[in-house]
Amino acid sequence: MARPSGRRAEQLRPVKITRHYTVHAEGSVLVEFGDTKVICTASVEPGVPRFLRGSGQGWVTAEYGMLPRSTGSRMGREAARGKQGGRTQEIQRLIGRSLRAAVDLKKLGEVTITVDCDVIQADGGTRTAAITGACVALVDALNHLQRKKSLKADPLNCMVAAVSVGIYNGEPVLDLDYAEDSSAETDMNVVMTSAGGFIEVQGTAEAAPFSADEMTAMMALAQKGIADLVRVQQMALAQG
Amino acid sequence: MARPSGRRAEQLRPVKITRHYTVHAEGSVLVEFGDTKVICTASVEPGVPRFLRGSGQGWVTAEYGMLPRSTGSRMGREAARGKQGGRTQEIQRLIGRSLRAAVDLKKLGEVTITVDCDVIQADGGTRTAAITGACVALVDALNHLQRKKSLKADPLNCMVAAVSVGIYNGEPVLDLDYAEDSSAETDMNVVMTSAGGFIEVQGTAEAAPFSADEMTAMMALAQKGIADLVRVQQMALAQG
Amino acid sequence: MARPSGRRAEQLRPVKITRHYTVHAEGSVLVEFGDTKVICTASVEPGVPRFLRGSGQGWVTAEYGMLPRSTGSRMGREAARGKQGGRTQEIQRLIGRSLRAAVDLKKLGEVTITVDCDVIQADGGTRTAAITGACVALVDALNHLQRKKSLKADPLNCMVAAVSVGIYNGEPVLDLDYAEDSSAETDMNVVMTSAGGFIEVQGTAEAAPFSADEMTAMMALAQKGIADLVRVQQMALAQG
Amino acid sequence: MARPSGRRAEQLRPVKITRHYTVHAEGSVLVEFGDTKVICTASVEPGVPRFLRGSGQGWVTAEYGMLPRSTGSRMGREAARGKQGGRTQEIQRLIGRSLRAAVDLKKLGEVTITVDCDVIQADGGTRTAAITGACVALVDALNHLQRKKSLKADPLNCMVAAVSVGIYNGEPVLDLDYAEDSSAETDMNVVMTSAGGFIEVQGTAEAAPFSADEMTAMMALAQKGIADLVRVQQMALAQG
Amino acid sequence: MARPSGRRAEQLRPVKITRHYTVHAEGSVLVEFGDTKVICTASVEPGVPRFLRGSGQGWVTAEYGMLPRSTGSRMGREAARGKQGGRTQEIQRLIGRSLRAAVDLKKLGEVTITVDCDVIQADGGTRTAAITGACVALVDALNHLQRKKSLKADPLNCMVAAVSVGIYNGEPVLDLDYAEDSSAETDMNVVMTSAGGFIEVQGTAEAAPFSADEMTAMMALAQKGIADLVRVQQMALAQG
Amino acid sequence: MARPSGRRAEQLRPVKITRHYTVHAEGSVLVEFGDTKVICTASVEPGVPRFLRGSGQGWVTAEYGMLPRSTGSRMGREAARGKQGGRTQEIQRLIGRSLRAAVDLKKLGEVTITVDCDVIQADGGTRTAAITGACVALVDALNHLQRKKSLKADPLNCMVAAVSVGIYNGEPVLDLDYAEDSSAETDMNVVMTSAGGFIEVQGTAEAAPFSADEMTAMMALAQKGIADLVRVQQMALAQG
Repeated sequence: MARPSGRRAEQLRPVKITRHYTVHAEGSVLVEFGDTKVICTASVEPGVPRFLRGSGQGWVTAEYGMLPRSTGSRMGREAARGKQGGRTQEIQRLIGRSLRAAVDLKKLGEVTITVDCDVIQADGGTRTAAITGACVALVDALNHLQRKKSLKADPLNCMVAAVSVGIYNGEPVLDLDYAEDSSAETDMNVVMTSAGGFIEVQGTAEAAPFSADEMTAMMALAQKGIADLVRVQQMALAQG
Repeated sequence: MARPSGRRAEQLRPVKITRHYTVHAEGSVLVEFGDTKVICTASVEPGVPRFLRGSGQGWVTAEYGMLPRSTGSRMGREAARGKQGGRTQEIQRLIGRSLRAAVDLKKLGEVTITVDCDVIQADGGTRTAAITGACVALVDALNHLQRKKSLKADPLNCMVAAVSVGIYNGEPVLDLDYAEDSSAETDMNVVMTSAGGFIEVQGTAEAAPFSADEMTAMMALAQKGIADLVRVQQMALAQG
Repeated sequence: MARPSGRRAEQLRPVKITRHYTVHAEGSVLVEFGDTKVICTASVEPGVPRFLRGSGQGWVTAEYGMLPRSTGSRMGREAARGKQGGRTQEIQRLIGRSLRAAVDLKKLGEVTITVDCDVIQADGGTRTAAITGACVALVDALNHLQRKKSLKADPLNCMVAAVSVGIYNGEPVLDLDYAEDSSAETDMNVVMTSAGGFIEVQGTAEAAPFSADEMTAMMALAQKGIADLVRVQQMALAQG
Repeated sequence: MARPSGRRAEQLRPVKITRHYTVHAEGSVLVEFGDTKVICTASVEPGVPRFLRGSGQGWVTAEYGMLPRSTGSRMGREAARGKQGGRTQEIQRLIGRSLRAAVDLKKLGEVTITVDCDVIQADGGTRTAAITGACVALVDALNHLQRKKSLKADPLNCMVAAVSVGIYNGEPVLDLDYAEDSSAETDMNVVMTSAGGFIEVQGTAEAAPFSADEMTAMMALAQKGIADLVRVQQMALAQG
Repeated sequence: MARPSGRRAEQLRPVKITRHYTVHAEGSVLVEFGDTKVICTASVEPGVPRFLRGSGQGWVTAEYGMLPRSTGSRMGREAARGKQGGRTQEIQRLIGRSLRAAVDLKKLGEVTITVDCDVIQADGGTRTAAITGACVALVDALNHLQRKKSLKADPLNCMVAAVSVGIYNGEPVLDLDYAEDSSAETDMNVVMTSAGGFIEVQGTAEAAPFSADEMTAMMALAQKGIADLVRVQQMALAQG
Repeated sequence: MARPSGRRAEQLRPVKITRHYTVHAEGSVLVEFGDTKVICTASVEPGVPRFLRGSGQGWVTAEYGMLPRSTGSRMGREAARGKQGGRTQEIQRLIGRSLRAAVDLKKLGEVTITVDCDVIQADGGTRTAAITGACVALVDALNHLQRKKSLKADPLNCMVAAVSVGIYNGEPVLDLDYAEDSSAETDMNVVMTSAGGFIEVQGTAEAAPFSADEMTAMMALAQKGIADLVRVQQMALAQG
């Protein structure tokens, strides 16, 4: 088997995280997984959703969008169609849940951090790139709050990163690009903490059902990939 | 550890599948997982979505809804709010993908089968009950097409069923009811074929990340539960 | 003239009212007028709409829906289309007005009771079945409030029931089923109190205008039918 | 009892029908029932809705709106709120059904006539004024088609007019204005043909149920009022 | 060159302003620019939008609509389509900004005046007629507030009026009607104060770009036309 | 007077146009006017809107959006709110009209080019930057069609560029940034062709009306600025 990109089965695409990408947001990151590029901005706003008011607890949420021509053929603009599609909602719910696993909301106080993940170029794996970049933007926003002395304790539990694994041409591979994704037998997104715990596992058999052994092999690849991604996150954050 | 219902860790709730539940649909099933009750109707309509026209291939899709007072406190009616929420869309996409795994769309011909899953009473696990019941309604709709001589070959690949597993009070358990679901550390929905292959795995750490060992234990429970559910499906279908 | 069902002109379909049909709602009824089956749940919630706040007065309102395949051919789901159609709005406004005639809103206090009427199987007369069943669900909700000592006085003015009458093949008939309804010359829905007063009269000439004499004949049939329906309601409520 | 306007119980408000009110529409009428003023325009367009295509039959439909400040306090604009309310939909369905009773759709051919009824000033009875004026605009549109030789036979069955009746201060009255309407015990809208047949009867008990005798008295008032309105329609049409 | 209407290049259509056109609004004007007829009603309501609460300052805003058959062929009703089109929003934003230039919002106090401009007949220039009429309705609403002693000082800065200019058949002309507008090379809307200052200039080259000299010529025509319109406004207001 | 940025009155911000910014679109440009950054992608699709079908003519249209945190404080996402605001619609209509002035639609053939302008960072002048960048993306898309031999003749009439001018602290200035824009007395957007013709002029008095002399001064600044911008466009296009 050869991957279209020539990568080895357990090899990530080149991953690049650029902090301070735009000037206004409290956290702003451009994350690239190969040709997949996502702008992740973390915005800090006072107050929390109604169900948390008075609880002393904060909230972290995410929104996701794709520029209409981030993809090979132009997609209709969701704002023009008047609603976000099911895929968009599924992805932004996933990103939000993942980020909340990284943060102790009680230590955050009654503040909402919204992380917008906007795909400017897509080549497979936009949701995993988004989570991986969004976590760095979130950390920058938390640092911003700490510099402003708005926090008593550091709310960061751990880093969170995400990667896709799948069965392509009968073999388990890591970090599928679009060429692989569109013809893979199985596609699975895995979100993990920097401490090695699982946050989300979402696997779908596209063509044929997958076996428990394939599942095990994919999980191992994911663990390897997440460890690599966490190192890239930490290097980006080390550059202050 | 004791489960609130007194069930053993690997024990399903009482499962009941009533066929021919309403009179108009080509397939109509009431599925009960304990106190969770879902009406699943399969409707056969000529024609396929635009992206399949002229392909000779059919389509299977699903819609999901909850009656406003199927739950402990009344939820707003989605039709009145003017849109389906993200959770609804996520679930109906999952049901649709799962059912398509059961069917060879090429053998179906240019026909669309829509399976409506409407929850009339909810006690946890509505999506897994819906998939399990919907598959039986789908089989009845396929049988209807065969009786009408509309099919050249049987499009049914296999049965598909679904169950939830989770970590409750630190232990892996099967088929969580609402009392368990609302305080579980991890909740995972697993869709499998009657042949033992995985179709979908969707696990979420609600409270704490889960480990690879917990993952393995949950997968084993799911395999056991699915085998039980497939037997209930087959018994229901055997009653003609 | 023979009615398709073989019924006499002044004969209702078999009417059945099942209380406590689902477990969560304060009032929950399955009402059946022959093959027409509607789930009516009454939900009690604190507070009232803005225009009543501070008035000390309560509110009773209704929502109506049909499962997509409650009918002979599948209807689009209103939640998916993003709005409730004109027929739905007309019916739920009718149900709400009818139920408010049964209740002294001042004695209710600042509480809202929402009655959801969801048709799971349709064979004509869904709105009249809904009103007749909804009133029983409403009484159960009021009883729930009385058991909780939330009411100082009984807010129930009277029972309310509804039935259709029409001109079918030139003759006035009671309680039209779908076969009659779809070819009737005139269709009229009548809502009355258990004390014999009229709450709503809505008659439409479908094919030819109707005369004052036909109107009189239909009103007499309606009075007879309502008296029968009130007896069924009272028997159901007597069973505690 | 005295009516606020000093009218006798069976007396209409001054009714005025101005044809050719605006220049573009095939039929354009300003109808006034006292201070209630409605612009009714009939637009002829080729083609019919999907369910009639190829049937050789035409269609007549209506839309209804109120200018935001046609009423005592400003109402939100439905276009700005993004949907037509339930009352609007109920009224435009009623107008459409009423007008279709006036026309033999088969003789119309595959043409759609849309009658827009826009209330520029409201003082009670906007729907009955709208129907009464809309019928005249419809006749002008049919005349336009006849002058263009687009019709083989005259599709007009009869004229249609509408009036409200009610119980005000315990007595039956004709053509309620806003002062009466807002405190009437019962409000009933009646649509009839020029030949004396009933098309629609819609009565609602606002405060107390009404009796069969009150119903009879209201129907007699309505018959008298409709006869008067048909004379006004015919005089307007006679002026060419 | 001859204008289709036979007007001279710098000649307005007959302009007519009828005050107190409807009875409910604090200001109500029918404005006619030839065959273009717009009802402008100014409604006074307590309170201001959220961004002004507590500022002591008032707000003036506008909404715009066209009756479906105000035009040569029927347009879909925006309320039925579920949203206001881009042109509508553009025009109502323009009217609102123009009117706010006429008023010292600080002197108005925390009150909102909404001016609804509804076109009942269109023949080009609906937005300029709307602004010109709306300003008179606004003045009547301010007078209403003064009569009620709700204002400490007169908030009216100046009158505001609007007119279109364009290049038609190569020559600059004033106040284009539909016949001119639909084939003009350039169309420009100009809003000015009674003191001769510019509030808005919106020019669009429809066919060919326009030159600086054409721009200058159009501006001169606009200044002349606005002066004429302000005289008509003042005469209308003088009639008390 | 000093401009906040220290620029001279007739000085543009640093302008940068990066072609081939993303990989999928037929034309893709990042345009920067100082800190304002807009991604403009031109997408070529077969077919034209309904009103042009069969005309042999093409269509050019534009859509505009802002990333939620492109601005100082986060704006709600239009896709999430379910509609595009009035400002967005106004801007995308302006961009579309401007681009259509650059192209001979008859020479384009029945093809639609959609230019998406998405602001990733805003500092005033997003619509003028968008038009200036979009025109370059459009030229790249036309070049793509020519390389594919899809065009018989070059449809490009001229280049189109846009710039803002205004009155800031009493003096006319070119290319306002956010600090100037938010406190300017007048703000005007001017779109011109590379041949010096005017396409659009949109001026708004924010604080005080502007005079004819100020208008003349602003027009002169705009002509100067546009000439500079056309040079930057041409240099970018020269780099192949």
